[in-house]
Amino acid sequence: MDIKNILEQIKQLPLLNIKKMFQDDFLLTWDRSDDEIAAVFKVAEILRNMRKNNISAKVFDSGLAVSLFRDNSTRTRFSYASASNLLGLSVQDLDEGKSQIAHGETVRETANMVSFMADVIGIRDDMYIGKGNAYMREVAASVSQGYEAGILEQRPTLVNLQCDIDHPTQSMADALHLIQYFGGIDKLKGKKIAMSWAYSPSYGKPLSVPQGIVGLMTRFGMDVVLAHPEGYGIMPEVEEIARKNAEISGGSFSKADSMAKSFQNADIVYPKSWAPFNAMEKRTDLYGNNDMDGIKALEKELLAQNANFKEWECTESLMDLTRDKSALYMHCLPADITGVSCEQGEVAASVFDRYRDPLYVEASYKPYAIAAMIFLAKFSNPAEKLMELLKHDGRRIL
Amino acid sequence: MDIKNILEQIKQLPLLNIKKMFQDDFLLTWDRSDDEIAAVFKVAEILRNMRKNNISAKVFDSGLAVSLFRDNSTRTRFSYASASNLLGLSVQDLDEGKSQIAHGETVRETANMVSFMADVIGIRDDMYIGKGNAYMREVAASVSQGYEAGILEQRPTLVNLQCDIDHPTQSMADALHLIQYFGGIDKLKGKKIAMSWAYSPSYGKPLSVPQGIVGLMTRFGMDVVLAHPEGYGIMPEVEEIARKNAEISGGSFSKADSMAKSFQNADIVYPKSWAPFNAMEKRTDLYGNNDMDGIKALEKELLAQNANFKEWECTESLMDLTRDKSALYMHCLPADITGVSCEQGEVAASVFDRYRDPLYVEASYKPYAIAAMIFLAKFSNPAEKLMELLKHDGRRIL
Amino acid sequence: MDIKNILEQIKQLPLLNIKKMFQDDFLLTWDRSDDEIAAVFKVAEILRNMRKNNISAKVFDSGLAVSLFRDNSTRTRFSYASASNLLGLSVQDLDEGKSQIAHGETVRETANMVSFMADVIGIRDDMYIGKGNAYMREVAASVSQGYEAGILEQRPTLVNLQCDIDHPTQSMADALHLIQYFGGIDKLKGKKIAMSWAYSPSYGKPLSVPQGIVGLMTRFGMDVVLAHPEGYGIMPEVEEIARKNAEISGGSFSKADSMAKSFQNADIVYPKSWAPFNAMEKRTDLYGNNDMDGIKALEKELLAQNANFKEWECTESLMDLTRDKSALYMHCLPADITGVSCEQGEVAASVFDRYRDPLYVEASYKPYAIAAMIFLAKFSNPAEKLMELLKHDGRRIL
Repeated sequence: MDIKNILEQIKQLPLLNIKKMFQDDFLLTWDRSDDEIAAVFKVAEILRNMRKNNISAKVFDSGLAVSLFRDNSTRTRFSYASASNLLGLSVQDLDEGKSQIAHGETVRETANMVSFMADVIGIRDDMYIGKGNAYMREVAASVSQGYEAGILEQRPTLVNLQCDIDHPTQSMADALHLIQYFGGIDKLKGKKIAMSWAYSPSYGKPLSVPQGIVGLMTRFGMDVVLAHPEGYGIMPEVEEIARKNAEISGGSFSKADSMAKSFQNADIVYPKSWAPFNAMEKRTDLYGNNDMDGIKALEKELLAQNANFKEWECTESLMDLTRDKSALYMHCLPADITGVSCEQGEVAASVFDRYRDPLYVEASYKPYAIAAMIFLAKFSNPAEKLMELLKHDGRRIL
Repeated sequence: MDIKNILEQIKQLPLLNIKKMFQDDFLLTWDRSDDEIAAVFKVAEILRNMRKNNISAKVFDSGLAVSLFRDNSTRTRFSYASASNLLGLSVQDLDEGKSQIAHGETVRETANMVSFMADVIGIRDDMYIGKGNAYMREVAASVSQGYEAGILEQRPTLVNLQCDIDHPTQSMADALHLIQYFGGIDKLKGKKIAMSWAYSPSYGKPLSVPQGIVGLMTRFGMDVVLAHPEGYGIMPEVEEIARKNAEISGGSFSKADSMAKSFQNADIVYPKSWAPFNAMEKRTDLYGNNDMDGIKALEKELLAQNANFKEWECTESLMDLTRDKSALYMHCLPADITGVSCEQGEVAASVFDRYRDPLYVEASYKPYAIAAMIFLAKFSNPAEKLMELLKHDGRRIL
Repeated sequence: MDIKNILEQIKQLPLLNIKKMFQDDFLLTWDRSDDEIAAVFKVAEILRNMRKNNISAKVFDSGLAVSLFRDNSTRTRFSYASASNLLGLSVQDLDEGKSQIAHGETVRETANMVSFMADVIGIRDDMYIGKGNAYMREVAASVSQGYEAGILEQRPTLVNLQCDIDHPTQSMADALHLIQYFGGIDKLKGKKIAMSWAYSPSYGKPLSVPQGIVGLMTRFGMDVVLAHPEGYGIMPEVEEIARKNAEISGGSFSKADSMAKSFQNADIVYPKSWAPFNAMEKRTDLYGNNDMDGIKALEKELLAQNANFKEWECTESLMDLTRDKSALYMHCLPADITGVSCEQGEVAASVFDRYRDPLYVEASYKPYAIAAMIFLAKFSNPAEKLMELLKHDGRRIL
């Protein structure tokens, strides 16, 4: 991809209605219009191509990118750091530990205190149902208020780096992978994707990945199948969103009660473990009551329940059910690989091995997806700014 | 404020005698002349106005800003990170834990080892009486020696981010707030400020805030009243400094034994908890002897003592005593708010609520105060450098 | 040193054959040719002189410098941060704790996941024999594979910040110190250096320093003597390398069984504690078997063994044995100083005191050595890039 092509891509941006993205946050993909989603894809691709052509995308001369990770993270932390660095921002960690955060006064105050020179705030808060996204909105409201009151000289943009409901930087990176793999967003129409539960010996993996996938992929006219054992349902609200999306996009959203059924003629499979929504709600309540014995009992119960579904593993024979026996295998990583990272897990080693390179490529889009979200929130005319960068022709490496 | 006004501000800088600031540290406000204090205010305002006008203040192309926080910190950490980033420096944490640091050889060595490419060292060390400021001076002497011996290619500037004696970045930010609020440093003359102890259910808050306030505000011709219950005195040396300052500036420094008395006709109130100086000295001795039982006993004693003074709360009726019932309420944050962050605390919720925005604005000056301290230590002719920045016209955001 | 001299230095670079350094790693000094070693010295000196002349060396506009420290580190951490910052890279820590890391899939995946925008990866992993260097090579292979598969848009360069075998950034900085001290790399020919074991009350210091020293200094035609008590041998493979180096360079490599013998007429002495190689191998096995009792027993045994050799201390009378009683004393710091940092240690206080400034200067070369390693791996024509920097004439400080 040379510079002429980058120019072509930039020219397509003004065709999209993205006025509402300016000064706004990126919290849930279904909060954003189709044009806004398309703009993130477009800007992510442009930024990637600029970097490949050694063109600097440093739009910030100074400024902080605040990060708040309530859960351990390597992938998302590095993606956020990479995106911030690409645009010229310095990451500053806000370390509040994993403990559930205070609300009200403390949130409002902390949000403003860290934002005097912050252009972005990235938050990962996926541990408790009903908490993470709510917390992000509280922070967003606090900095909006601070900005309007003249306390903050700029309004930092919130980027959801994973919450209890959605994982938009993951699902958008996944979609970028599909767009590249199939040769365009229009090529996704009619493709079947199986978002399937898979067995894992560990417990309590977040719901935000499957929810993010069905909440986003249903917008592209795809046939999205959500498969899981009984009792492993996701949030009903998100299923509802997926259903509506499919109606509008001309795709479909259906459910299946086995991995095999969902894999039938699938173009893409995404087998991944998650915890049942109901159990996660119960866990949040137990946590709220500080009932640690109750939490331990629940964990034990869930691990036992999981063990009933060890056959939910993405094996070669299941892969053989997919279209031309060669569906694209996806995962947000790290995967529980049978015989490699655990005795029995989500995926057979031979399947994982064949798809390692595409899996890494899938992950490689996340920094660009994040950078695009920031870029679109910061500039009212992003195409103009990208043109300025091209004209200025700063080199990433001398 | 447009660029013409920034030029006007810069023109005032050369009128001040600030020769001694070059290559020096900022450790105690009372170590610095009136001109030097005025220069910090001036440069802080200029940097703020430049940023508001999207003008880059990046005077460093590379360089480290070492930070050493011996106590947890969010506000000051982000202020320091913001200031460093604004000027182009990268923060690198020196993590030595909260343990009392070794002296002599270790300090000298570590100070040099981290400073090969360091332009600034910011230290927060407020836990033990007689230790924090002494440690900063030891670091300062070490890097001076290293610079003079040709080991260091530049001498990093020390910035006191809070010690046992003073909290200059806080008091200077507070003063900037007052200057903006009342419309000029000359408007502070004759204003009455009440620095009052207030009840808190927690224990052992540093003395550096009240000491910093009475040590600085007495320089502007203000009537400074320090109020506290019996036994809650601050360092006698600092009271002496406040007394002398007031004499020179034509203001006054007095003491009161109730919050109410100090609030009478006050233009500004600053009710805040702190630990008695004598108790903190005792605590330092116990710590030195590793007498943990003694420390526990002292804490218990102090909490019980505190509980005798729960009526030292900044309530609406006390606020009614102030000038026109509308004194400016100040706090370094976070405050112990009655019924919000604790059952009973330093301030009534309704008072805090009314002053939330000004409190946040008060805090917003700290990054600029720190940046100004660094700037003035790094350039022998700061006005010239600021003019260069204006001429160069780099944009903070493209 | 003025700019004309920098130009002279740059002109010498193209005379060296350094083609293999481009896109490669710096893991062991004996993996690199004499020209490559000379190039690191040259570029380190150029970068230092550029910085002294306030010339920016920022070749990266953006990009991450990943750091992975499996052991506590202040000196090396700050050296790496300084080097990265000097070149324009932002440090991002990969925090995996001190636990022994998983291999295979996990390494491959993590290495790629953190490298999407990484230009360098610096690793310190010196805790277990047979592990640290092997781990670095695994990471290097992983990112090579990722780069070749088109996953990574650039191949991050690995820099060994200390492993079980070598400590190349230390030994190269030490060599730079000698080059400056004696006035040129050619002046090292025929100089005698004593790398001697010394007593320390602590246990298990890494072998990488003595190994790095004998593995590197034997290349410059020096007479290198390795002295240690019986049972404190280093890795036989490294002794073999030292022997071969000496043969080629026209120097010598010999062993001594007392500090005194090694100090006889020495021009340079490097007395430093380390743990016996055999014991470290045993410890690694015990660790592999999770035999914590065995490890405790081994530690006790080693401390008792150490105590038999308390006379291995660098005293004034031992220094009197050196050439003109004035050999250059070296240490990687921190040293165990008798009566200062411990009751009895590696060096007498008066010896250390006399050499403090040179010791700090010795340490000051490390950031430049690291920066040079990165620079040479990133540019196929480093002389050209340095000339570009000079022409562009960016100032480090405005």
